[in-house]
Amino acid sequence: MKRKISILGATGSVGKSTLDLIERSPDRFEVVALTAATNAAALAQAAIRTNARLAVVADKASLPELEQALAGNACRAAAGREALLEAAAGEADWVMAAIVGCAGLEPVMAAIEAGRTIALANKEALVTAGSLMIDAAGRAGATILPVDSEHNAIFQCLAGSRLEDVSRLVLTASGGPFRMMSADDMARATPEQAVAHPNWSMGAKISVDSATMMNKGLELIEAHHLFGIPAKRIDILVHSQSVVHSLVEYVDGSMIAQLGSADMRIPIAYALAWPARMETPAERLDLVKAARLDFEKPDIVRFPALRLAREALAAGGSAPIVLNAANEIAVAAFLDRRIGFADIAVTVARALETIDAPAPRSITDVIDIDLEVREKAREIMSLPAS
Amino acid sequence: MKRKISILGATGSVGKSTLDLIERSPDRFEVVALTAATNAAALAQAAIRTNARLAVVADKASLPELEQALAGNACRAAAGREALLEAAAGEADWVMAAIVGCAGLEPVMAAIEAGRTIALANKEALVTAGSLMIDAAGRAGATILPVDSEHNAIFQCLAGSRLEDVSRLVLTASGGPFRMMSADDMARATPEQAVAHPNWSMGAKISVDSATMMNKGLELIEAHHLFGIPAKRIDILVHSQSVVHSLVEYVDGSMIAQLGSADMRIPIAYALAWPARMETPAERLDLVKAARLDFEKPDIVRFPALRLAREALAAGGSAPIVLNAANEIAVAAFLDRRIGFADIAVTVARALETIDAPAPRSITDVIDIDLEVREKAREIMSLPAS
Repeated sequence: MKRKISILGATGSVGKSTLDLIERSPDRFEVVALTAATNAAALAQAAIRTNARLAVVADKASLPELEQALAGNACRAAAGREALLEAAAGEADWVMAAIVGCAGLEPVMAAIEAGRTIALANKEALVTAGSLMIDAAGRAGATILPVDSEHNAIFQCLAGSRLEDVSRLVLTASGGPFRMMSADDMARATPEQAVAHPNWSMGAKISVDSATMMNKGLELIEAHHLFGIPAKRIDILVHSQSVVHSLVEYVDGSMIAQLGSADMRIPIAYALAWPARMETPAERLDLVKAARLDFEKPDIVRFPALRLAREALAAGGSAPIVLNAANEIAVAAFLDRRIGFADIAVTVARALETIDAPAPRSITDVIDIDLEVREKAREIMSLPAS
Repeated sequence: MKRKISILGATGSVGKSTLDLIERSPDRFEVVALTAATNAAALAQAAIRTNARLAVVADKASLPELEQALAGNACRAAAGREALLEAAAGEADWVMAAIVGCAGLEPVMAAIEAGRTIALANKEALVTAGSLMIDAAGRAGATILPVDSEHNAIFQCLAGSRLEDVSRLVLTASGGPFRMMSADDMARATPEQAVAHPNWSMGAKISVDSATMMNKGLELIEAHHLFGIPAKRIDILVHSQSVVHSLVEYVDGSMIAQLGSADMRIPIAYALAWPARMETPAERLDLVKAARLDFEKPDIVRFPALRLAREALAAGGSAPIVLNAANEIAVAAFLDRRIGFADIAVTVARALETIDAPAPRSITDVIDIDLEVREKAREIMSLPAS
């Protein structure tokens, strides 16, 4: 039987890779719904190619363009929040949650509450609402399959194992473009330097997160929620080549690692075909060509984001929301050249110290706190540097 | 419920490591039978410590000593082939098959035919009688758990997977002590140089096999039988640090690797606790301390054993028996300084070319062919070098 698929965020990078894989295996998959934020043209094209039944643009202003592009086609066009939630909780067995940012929270929760299998590419879901999402998944019988390369690697390394046999998770980190840079040079680093990621081709925001290593801090929080492992048993290991995507250490001393080329279609395919696997056109990893893999300890002095993320997770409540939102605002300010690179972590640290929000009890709370933190983070940055 | 364990070859290296693990977890395991070749004193001590019910020495001449050492103890003493087969096929659920050499074949087959779960450390079983053993295991519903670090690694990497999703097995090889040596220097290599293995502490014969890389050739044959994967989809990768014990590549391009310190208690524990895991005192792998892992292609010109093993497997029938027996005789001659290092492979190649034995139909056939090949290999070595 074909797996029924919906893709939330079908026109972004992960969404496009998912479509690429689905279109290569038409015998295995059937597309139910596709959504996009605003790109009606690309969405309509994808919907027509895959015979999707529903195409949703989040932005209602884009609906006329979508309707026109789908004119004469069996695919229904819709727009807005309700339509997005319908796509998320609709009849698909398997939902790719690839909407970027807090806009993805409600659709992810809708898919979870509908008891779906969710391939989770949205990072905010577990960082800002980890306990809410995991508790809801438990209640609804939903399955969350991580798509992020590190978490997907750990998920692969855990296959067939009992959680009580796990002693440690090890998230690998490329170390980003500033791995070898002095603290002084890092303080003077430009946006151009920060977005030049050595291994993965990524957007500007996530590239800066790689440069500060905040991405790894956020991934630590996600890993804690996804796998139910306390943060003190989740290590971060710098591995500049990004060939080993992460590892699991077991109580017997054995470590299982997942390796592969830097192609997101590999983790997406694992989620798509899970618990089986499927062919992908991804380049095979050639370890003879790679020749050498290096490992080193992360430097938490030059990369304070790692410490801040652990502190936010330990503090619990709304602290991870503060961490995430303050970081986003600070990264945007850095990319706009309004603050320096080192100020990103300073801003996040101040936000964690000064912003006191209650623990969220719903996704609405999370979204409200997130907005509030963004305002306050902007205020923090307008203060003179101490 | 406690797992009932018997250990065939309890006084050797693998047997002792198995006992070490069992004695650390007395709540999980119950010892049924222990066997040894001749070392009655060590066997009796182990039997008394673990409250074994049966202790067997293969050598009947050692029985009086065993009886005396067990006097007044509830453990029954026995000796000889029949007693060994009784220990193998007795009431234990789980049998460690760690008898070295062709002496282990009949006991392994007895345990298989009794439908037991067999932790297989004996290398000859699958090299010389792979099809017979695997067919018998299928008929009897026996489970074979590999103990050798490479095969155990692959077995771990396959956990939770379907065989049809596997595209390739990759056996790692340290490359042995002559990895960087020129062919000329290798031809003049002494037994002392050949037994100096860089990573694992092993016996002389197996150390020479590591120096010639015949060990990897034999492991390739074992892997083919164990996992049912054609030899052309089993690669050998030189990895001098022996940290990655082997890998599996899946159809999606993902690779799963097992890593660990060089402590045989890790693979033994995996077999002991399978499908769960158990604590071991093995040193945890510290990748920061390891710092660097290297990979390179094996050189089949300097290491012709790799080619010979593939040819023997492809030829089938009795060719793997010829490969194994001729190699043993040649290695012994090298250790006795009767032939040079390069003559080991020359002898094996000549044996494969000239010895024509029928395909074995039983373990008795395998043992007969093995003895015949040993004679002929000795004859080959007495010929003047061409």
